[in-house]
Amino acid sequence: LVPVSSYLRDKKNSDQNTNNNNKKVIHSIKVGISLLLVSLLYLLDALYNQVGDNAMWAIMTVVVIFELYAGATLGKGLNRGIGTILGGGLGCLFAFIAQEVGGVGNSIVIAITIFIFGAGATYIRQAPSIKKRYDYGVMIFILTFNLVVVSGIRADQVLKIARDRLLSIVMGFLVGISVSLFVFPMWTSDELHHSTASKFHDLANTVQGCLEEYFKSDSEKKNAQRNTSCCKSVLNSKPKDESLANFAKWEPWHGRFGYSYPWDMYLSIGDVLRELAAIVLALNSCLQSSRQAKEWGNEPLKEACEGIGASIAWSLREVGDSIEQRRKPKAENEILPKLKEVRAEMSSMIAETENNEKGDLAIASLLVLLMTEV
Amino acid sequence: LVPVSSYLRDKKNSDQNTNNNNKKVIHSIKVGISLLLVSLLYLLDALYNQVGDNAMWAIMTVVVIFELYAGATLGKGLNRGIGTILGGGLGCLFAFIAQEVGGVGNSIVIAITIFIFGAGATYIRQAPSIKKRYDYGVMIFILTFNLVVVSGIRADQVLKIARDRLLSIVMGFLVGISVSLFVFPMWTSDELHHSTASKFHDLANTVQGCLEEYFKSDSEKKNAQRNTSCCKSVLNSKPKDESLANFAKWEPWHGRFGYSYPWDMYLSIGDVLRELAAIVLALNSCLQSSRQAKEWGNEPLKEACEGIGASIAWSLREVGDSIEQRRKPKAENEILPKLKEVRAEMSSMIAETENNEKGDLAIASLLVLLMTEV
Repeated sequence: LVPVSSYLRDKKNSDQNTNNNNKKVIHSIKVGISLLLVSLLYLLDALYNQVGDNAMWAIMTVVVIFELYAGATLGKGLNRGIGTILGGGLGCLFAFIAQEVGGVGNSIVIAITIFIFGAGATYIRQAPSIKKRYDYGVMIFILTFNLVVVSGIRADQVLKIARDRLLSIVMGFLVGISVSLFVFPMWTSDELHHSTASKFHDLANTVQGCLEEYFKSDSEKKNAQRNTSCCKSVLNSKPKDESLANFAKWEPWHGRFGYSYPWDMYLSIGDVLRELAAIVLALNSCLQSSRQAKEWGNEPLKEACEGIGASIAWSLREVGDSIEQRRKPKAENEILPKLKEVRAEMSSMIAETENNEKGDLAIASLLVLLMTEV
Repeated sequence: LVPVSSYLRDKKNSDQNTNNNNKKVIHSIKVGISLLLVSLLYLLDALYNQVGDNAMWAIMTVVVIFELYAGATLGKGLNRGIGTILGGGLGCLFAFIAQEVGGVGNSIVIAITIFIFGAGATYIRQAPSIKKRYDYGVMIFILTFNLVVVSGIRADQVLKIARDRLLSIVMGFLVGISVSLFVFPMWTSDELHHSTASKFHDLANTVQGCLEEYFKSDSEKKNAQRNTSCCKSVLNSKPKDESLANFAKWEPWHGRFGYSYPWDMYLSIGDVLRELAAIVLALNSCLQSSRQAKEWGNEPLKEACEGIGASIAWSLREVGDSIEQRRKPKAENEILPKLKEVRAEMSSMIAETENNEKGDLAIASLLVLLMTEV
């Protein structure tokens, strides 16, 4: 059974690799297509006569906003749009005020405005809640504001400049968004959903793997490293989850994900999973350190432990699958009683057992916690 | 003692908050100053006559590259510079080739080049090693290449356009870098150094805190949440550490940090600390779940446990301080014997003890591991 399961694991890994590579290739081709489309503004005379050199801004917009996931592209595009509009609007206003002052005062007013808005917006940008979702928008605000205010001193038609640039940015935005959303879209939502579900499987594999490892004879142990690497990647997944959830919030209604889908729930499931991963990791190092102390001999206890490990792994997989397929887990009628049974079994053994059961006990109680959240 | 230590902890927190806020204010003022300096290109007639409308690119460069840390600013600036030079150079080359073809073929050659370079560079950009350090540079490469190639079809003086833009980007780069490096510089190196050292203290506090908590009567327990939050932030620190180490590598020689300073060492210390944090967290949940099971009554065992906790916390603090002050830890002659003594003490008690000592044992062995790495 062990070689089969490890073969399946390897196959899954290589499938995932090809899948990832496909994603990269598709993304690259999409970027190429959008660049080509937006370059038509320069290449075709009819279009160039309409927009002129401002087509540059459209190209820049496409290059800058195009990200792997649709949600990220949309978020960056909207940030860029809003930042440009606000920055351009305020920039025009202050350019007019400075022109009213006239003379040398003009330059002084502009210099002061630049300093105040630059420093102020940078300060706001560093607040965690702004930084999380609107960092790029504030940067574009500073940029546009500055460009519009300083061109006000040289060009007479500030309004026209601002309008033309805005229009070409909107064009770039439309091209980028259309390609991102309509040509093989890659949704952050799907990614977050699958990665959450697959974390359950990773943990289940690790729990089983490290118990198997523990009961193996010394000659057999080889892939302990691989076991924990899976677990560690779950442990370090917080920032990735957060950015995925953040992008997912920008995505429009699609597939089975509604508009006000509870993305934050994934984050709290992720938190619980990370705690679980910490416990599994600790269990693993306890097992490794106690292996040095003594050799295993107690057959019935071994079977009991393996049974417990198997039911915990089964429960984890069951919850993971139920999330993947978006059905209610069999919690009420199967998983919870099973875990309770495991717990009772452990309590009866607790006098004579190793601390790995204690760790399992903590896992079990965390899992119960998890049940209530799903 | 407990109120004093918690007062000190609070004071340290509020100190850190003011400190963080000061940093933000200084950063904002620095951004304001650089924007003002670079806007002089527009505001002063003498300068404007030299650079003309290309001053726009200098402003853009300052806004885009200016980051909180000197290393990040330098890294982004160099990326931007190299991306611009490569993209501009290749862009000019292909613009000339397309001109040689002439007629309708001209546009077709340009369209094909745009697609191939856009898709190819995007594919390369997604490779992890490139993404980590040169993501921004590749984006700027795509951007510049496109702009230069498409302007080749409209403007006769591609070379002049490319040169002027490059010059104004260099100006923006110089302004940004000078302000970032010479006006109250904020070094990533210092940040990484201090955060690594303070993680040791956080873990020591958590170990002590959760043992204190465990031996308290039910009426006293209040700040368990704070204990683990510290530990969880250590657990989630991997991506932050990685980006700090990444920025630190860009920073020039300064203070006590040489040019080929072993930044990767901080990453491996961080890894060990995260494993430790996982164990402490697991220990904490074990303690919480076993509290429900029974009430504590055994005085001598309690003292022994507290003694063990205190020596582990002391060793962690000692290693943290020695890293902070960059002296050799007293490992050989004080910490190691003390930990060995603790270990022996535990082994003698192991028959009658709870699994928290077992957790501590794992901590101790990890700590020994850590010793060998420092």
